[in-house]
Amino acid sequence: MPSYEPQASDKFTFGLWTVGNIGRDPFGEPTRAPISPPELLRLLAEVGAWGVNLHDNDLVPIDATPSERDRIVREFKATLAETGLVCPMATTNLFSDPAFKDGAFTSNDARVRAYSLHKTMHAIDLGVELGARVYVFWGGREGAESDAAKDPILSLQRMRDALNFLCQYCLDQGYELRFALEPKPNEPRSDIYLPTVGHMLAFIETLEHPAMVGVNPEVAHEHMAGLNFMHAVAQAWDAGKLFHIDLNDQLFGRYDQDFRFGAAMLRQAFHLVRFLEGVGYAGSRHFDAHAYRSADYGDVRAFARGCMRTYLILREKAQQFAEDQEIQALLAEIHHQDDEFADLDQGYRRETAQRIHRRAFDRHALAARPLPYERLDQLTTELLLGVRDG
Amino acid sequence: MPSYEPQASDKFTFGLWTVGNIGRDPFGEPTRAPISPPELLRLLAEVGAWGVNLHDNDLVPIDATPSERDRIVREFKATLAETGLVCPMATTNLFSDPAFKDGAFTSNDARVRAYSLHKTMHAIDLGVELGARVYVFWGGREGAESDAAKDPILSLQRMRDALNFLCQYCLDQGYELRFALEPKPNEPRSDIYLPTVGHMLAFIETLEHPAMVGVNPEVAHEHMAGLNFMHAVAQAWDAGKLFHIDLNDQLFGRYDQDFRFGAAMLRQAFHLVRFLEGVGYAGSRHFDAHAYRSADYGDVRAFARGCMRTYLILREKAQQFAEDQEIQALLAEIHHQDDEFADLDQGYRRETAQRIHRRAFDRHALAARPLPYERLDQLTTELLLGVRDG
Amino acid sequence: MPSYEPQASDKFTFGLWTVGNIGRDPFGEPTRAPISPPELLRLLAEVGAWGVNLHDNDLVPIDATPSERDRIVREFKATLAETGLVCPMATTNLFSDPAFKDGAFTSNDARVRAYSLHKTMHAIDLGVELGARVYVFWGGREGAESDAAKDPILSLQRMRDALNFLCQYCLDQGYELRFALEPKPNEPRSDIYLPTVGHMLAFIETLEHPAMVGVNPEVAHEHMAGLNFMHAVAQAWDAGKLFHIDLNDQLFGRYDQDFRFGAAMLRQAFHLVRFLEGVGYAGSRHFDAHAYRSADYGDVRAFARGCMRTYLILREKAQQFAEDQEIQALLAEIHHQDDEFADLDQGYRRETAQRIHRRAFDRHALAARPLPYERLDQLTTELLLGVRDG
Amino acid sequence: MPSYEPQASDKFTFGLWTVGNIGRDPFGEPTRAPISPPELLRLLAEVGAWGVNLHDNDLVPIDATPSERDRIVREFKATLAETGLVCPMATTNLFSDPAFKDGAFTSNDARVRAYSLHKTMHAIDLGVELGARVYVFWGGREGAESDAAKDPILSLQRMRDALNFLCQYCLDQGYELRFALEPKPNEPRSDIYLPTVGHMLAFIETLEHPAMVGVNPEVAHEHMAGLNFMHAVAQAWDAGKLFHIDLNDQLFGRYDQDFRFGAAMLRQAFHLVRFLEGVGYAGSRHFDAHAYRSADYGDVRAFARGCMRTYLILREKAQQFAEDQEIQALLAEIHHQDDEFADLDQGYRRETAQRIHRRAFDRHALAARPLPYERLDQLTTELLLGVRDG
Repeated sequence: MPSYEPQASDKFTFGLWTVGNIGRDPFGEPTRAPISPPELLRLLAEVGAWGVNLHDNDLVPIDATPSERDRIVREFKATLAETGLVCPMATTNLFSDPAFKDGAFTSNDARVRAYSLHKTMHAIDLGVELGARVYVFWGGREGAESDAAKDPILSLQRMRDALNFLCQYCLDQGYELRFALEPKPNEPRSDIYLPTVGHMLAFIETLEHPAMVGVNPEVAHEHMAGLNFMHAVAQAWDAGKLFHIDLNDQLFGRYDQDFRFGAAMLRQAFHLVRFLEGVGYAGSRHFDAHAYRSADYGDVRAFARGCMRTYLILREKAQQFAEDQEIQALLAEIHHQDDEFADLDQGYRRETAQRIHRRAFDRHALAARPLPYERLDQLTTELLLGVRDG
Repeated sequence: MPSYEPQASDKFTFGLWTVGNIGRDPFGEPTRAPISPPELLRLLAEVGAWGVNLHDNDLVPIDATPSERDRIVREFKATLAETGLVCPMATTNLFSDPAFKDGAFTSNDARVRAYSLHKTMHAIDLGVELGARVYVFWGGREGAESDAAKDPILSLQRMRDALNFLCQYCLDQGYELRFALEPKPNEPRSDIYLPTVGHMLAFIETLEHPAMVGVNPEVAHEHMAGLNFMHAVAQAWDAGKLFHIDLNDQLFGRYDQDFRFGAAMLRQAFHLVRFLEGVGYAGSRHFDAHAYRSADYGDVRAFARGCMRTYLILREKAQQFAEDQEIQALLAEIHHQDDEFADLDQGYRRETAQRIHRRAFDRHALAARPLPYERLDQLTTELLLGVRDG
Repeated sequence: MPSYEPQASDKFTFGLWTVGNIGRDPFGEPTRAPISPPELLRLLAEVGAWGVNLHDNDLVPIDATPSERDRIVREFKATLAETGLVCPMATTNLFSDPAFKDGAFTSNDARVRAYSLHKTMHAIDLGVELGARVYVFWGGREGAESDAAKDPILSLQRMRDALNFLCQYCLDQGYELRFALEPKPNEPRSDIYLPTVGHMLAFIETLEHPAMVGVNPEVAHEHMAGLNFMHAVAQAWDAGKLFHIDLNDQLFGRYDQDFRFGAAMLRQAFHLVRFLEGVGYAGSRHFDAHAYRSADYGDVRAFARGCMRTYLILREKAQQFAEDQEIQALLAEIHHQDDEFADLDQGYRRETAQRIHRRAFDRHALAARPLPYERLDQLTTELLLGVRDG
Repeated sequence: MPSYEPQASDKFTFGLWTVGNIGRDPFGEPTRAPISPPELLRLLAEVGAWGVNLHDNDLVPIDATPSERDRIVREFKATLAETGLVCPMATTNLFSDPAFKDGAFTSNDARVRAYSLHKTMHAIDLGVELGARVYVFWGGREGAESDAAKDPILSLQRMRDALNFLCQYCLDQGYELRFALEPKPNEPRSDIYLPTVGHMLAFIETLEHPAMVGVNPEVAHEHMAGLNFMHAVAQAWDAGKLFHIDLNDQLFGRYDQDFRFGAAMLRQAFHLVRFLEGVGYAGSRHFDAHAYRSADYGDVRAFARGCMRTYLILREKAQQFAEDQEIQALLAEIHHQDDEFADLDQGYRRETAQRIHRRAFDRHALAARPLPYERLDQLTTELLLGVRDG
């Protein structure tokens, strides 16, 4: 068996908040004592991660004085250097503090919106200082329980104003930073605005600096809406907007589970890895997951190693899929060439339109063409289960 | 009590396939005998509808000869004239025939893709002949069961090619037609590409003629993904893309139910009507629903009347909401003015950024501001239930 | 308009944990300062509740000494007397403490199972002392994330052992207490055992003292599985097992929302109230809900009043439904008498079987019988919206 | 690699309606020409199935005369003999005909209820004649769209009356037949009564002959409600009620997909097979699935073979799980012995209760005990993916 040991080139990252999650949930108190950011870096280095990501307050307490902040950041950078970890992404915590109880950028209170900008500018400064090149926005509180209370058009406008403001702030500061917006359909709000990758991609086109802004899709978030995550990632890729990705797992139609990558829907994880490797995605493979609440820090290490191992195993299987002769022969059969319509994908021409408009088609013959998708999917299943030769 | 009788100005429309639905489902044979398109027009006129919409094959059988087609269309136009109904929207059936078993525009078979263009060009010709100004695309078969079988990037490209081709066809023909794309997450395919309003809005921005193309959101389709429909409609409106709307109802996370408007989630229907009326949506109120399979044509009429009556009742309640002094006072309190941050929504300025960057915020004070949303939502509930005075 | 003021005879109860909820969620810190149990009693009395329910640790801290416990209970009973509130139900907190991280009665650790019995026996003693007649069991941690880790047969057996033990404990102590088991499909565990009202009813039949044990269905919990809550309540009622009920609201397929009664799915709430009032359910109407996280204690009061008002408004509408002549005429038509088959519901007799076996049926005639359900449901909608005369 | 060829001892069965499914769905016409029941038997024999199951009208058209019926049955029995297939299960089609548009046993029309008994008695006679020992009831139409229209208590009573009647009919006829009730939450009705395995198990206890009646759980149906299927099967097994099982696959919260076994949620399929093989389930492994609509009969064969192969592969993996030393060592550690509480599972004794009541527990020590579930689940993942040695 191969070793499935992570390498720096795999670009595996974890959030400080993931391996540092203390196992609190809506019905229970923490099961793990918090450990310090430097200790978390050492844990990540030990399991073989390449990088670490963070919210501002994962590292710097919300009420830290400037000098405390500077000392903490200095120590953190020293531990980054010591462990060889990088910090490719940062983000702002705009959801924990009660000030954000009705949203941050979309709050009905202008003062909360101003505070959100203030907090984000400082958090961006921090991220840039740590070397981050991607800045994530997850608007967990940007939503509503009652549609009597918030105006969705006004909320969209406020979200847009905030992102335009912050894009310009980065340009003004000369920061080389790209924004990655992370959608989620619900929880902790009943309905969060811009609930899926699609809504977020559409929203980006309404910004002043759309080229600076892409998405950060998360497996669990699309699965909460029962959507095919790989399809969403494909659309983001197609639009040139896959700036970052959050890997984890989750059953459809559930609370936010954030399970170990591949822990819930294995086949879907395979097609995702096959897609990312197939198109040559070059960004971080970020695991935004956490260990079961029953885990101790030994099991947290098993969790973190498991995320990466499963990715590597599935990557190997994606390679097998590409090399499997029976599978590839089926795919060639399915995607056969049709010379008469070779010009179809070359855009509209009046003559083509007239020709197709006039031409008679034998719909029964079209329907009769075999599509051995059951056979293909079963071969894929057996490949995934490791029972195919070669 | 008001009469809640529909008026032409309400722009209520039904598809031929809605009141003409014969009550077949995956487990059962038809319960209603089909009635002819002219009869359906008379039924719609009788219940008070303003217009009718159709798929090509709702009116013209797929194997009709040109002369049969012309005769059928002539009779239909005569009945439109007789009944006073208009035909503001048309669409193509690219899902019933076995030729489309693996999709139409995204089929892996170029010949099927060509046939889909052929069929759509003819259907567009028909729609234009009948006076349609909006042309809907619902790609029910544009998806997959197995992600081993279809390439999502290639499928997006094929979808884009088809729409670019057809936009150009309309321009070339001088047709004044706008396209409205209708998303759906699943059924009849396990996963349909571009599954929600958001994905579709984003996709439109990648087309060659984005200004010609908008969306046709449907209540049931977003509810299948458990999403807040009104929020999706608001985003489409905000983007200037609400070209059409499909009103019906549906419980979250179910098969496609297409119930009478308001029959499943009444509060959500209210906020939707309040939104549409509030922003001044001027398009058709199209009911893409069908009567229970247990209904006879008498009950089909009750169904159709019910769709319109519920809309009118909810419109009246939206007006009450706007005039309710207690509710409006609460909203005013929630949206209070904050002079210090009055410039916040006016875009980035370096001075503003510096001021906010430097300013200290009292997060405890921000958190302490009351937000009487329970009270507001309860007043809304009571208004909806008809037990508020005034 | 009627006043919709709650009366003692309405038997409206709230948990200490409901109006006492401090607004913490998985992504945010508390927004409300905790207030003491006596203060919560006064709040409940002020809004018009009849009773209060509690978990052991809602009142007595988990580490309280016996004398502290006795003092707290004494003061609480004094405040019950002062306010006139009763305490009809109690339950055990077997989910907050990290000791229960892998379940209480179903933990793989025998010592945790023993501690769970210990804690529950003491909590039962407390409930009985406070006058409770119903004792609820919600096994929030009795489940699994990984089916590799826990054996579901063994878990069912352990759940059964625990309940048999505790039934016998009550009998042995002479406590007049009935148990009400509360199912939930998931959250905080990925899958909770005995996930719905149905599973729980079936499980009860496997206990040693099934007559002592019934269910406590909760709106939100069945809605999480996308199930019709009223149907579940009907089955519990039919089985003589509706010992208690948890009223709140929730969208399908979401995290546990616990909204104000009627705040999400209004039509469904109506049919529930119509059912409970129709069959003569005589137990508590318990609101297991909490105010939005954005609420202050003023809005918590509006929340609590809203739960009760909506119930009372819907009860009034249920009465209107029963008296509406058009609706009742339709129902009479639907439930018409058929003399030939009047004996059908009287049980099997060989002659009846032979007669029906031999008889020819005209299935087309059966299919042709009108069922005006659209009309009936629309009348119900209009009644609910308050726009029907009378 | 092993051959994974099905054997008679594997008891793999398919419904006539599964490999005979013609690919019609709510939005499309059939893609496969129907083939006759004898041909379907030959197809099943060819792919290696052990048995076939059927609805009455899968074999005998609803309007067949007695002599046509007898001829069809004679030929079918001859083909069973020729192919060596057995027919262990039969059932009634009480959902296709418009007569059942509002239910069969729960119809509001007594004449429909009588016809349902008539049709079922004849279908039972047919099943017995073909050798069936299990008789399945799937009440697809026993539900409602509007809770104004049907009374759930009355519906339960009617369901109970029908089943009591039919149990007695079998006893009266001397048929050795067990009933297996198959729940489904929705589709084709908005809400079907007795929606899950749990509800059905509970309902069975209210029948006159509960020992004759068990359940027929189906993967897809529990997944539609987002429930853990294996847990439901375990409860049925624990109750001695697992009389039959329907294997297929399905994503949560979707229309009824009926995919090839293992095609959607592979990990869940593994734990199911591990459970069935672990407890020694001896009934049919019935595949109630159908090929994609894009399949021709060649691909239908691949579909049928795939169902069986995936089961056999997962069975082999279940054996590996039981023999994997690292996995078993972890399980032994998790389920460690605790001598002090060895008597806990032996039932209530007053002394035990007093001892546990009095004993002090160190909840912090309980919480501190390691539970390496992440590690265990990751080993299971790797076993499933075929990358563990041994």
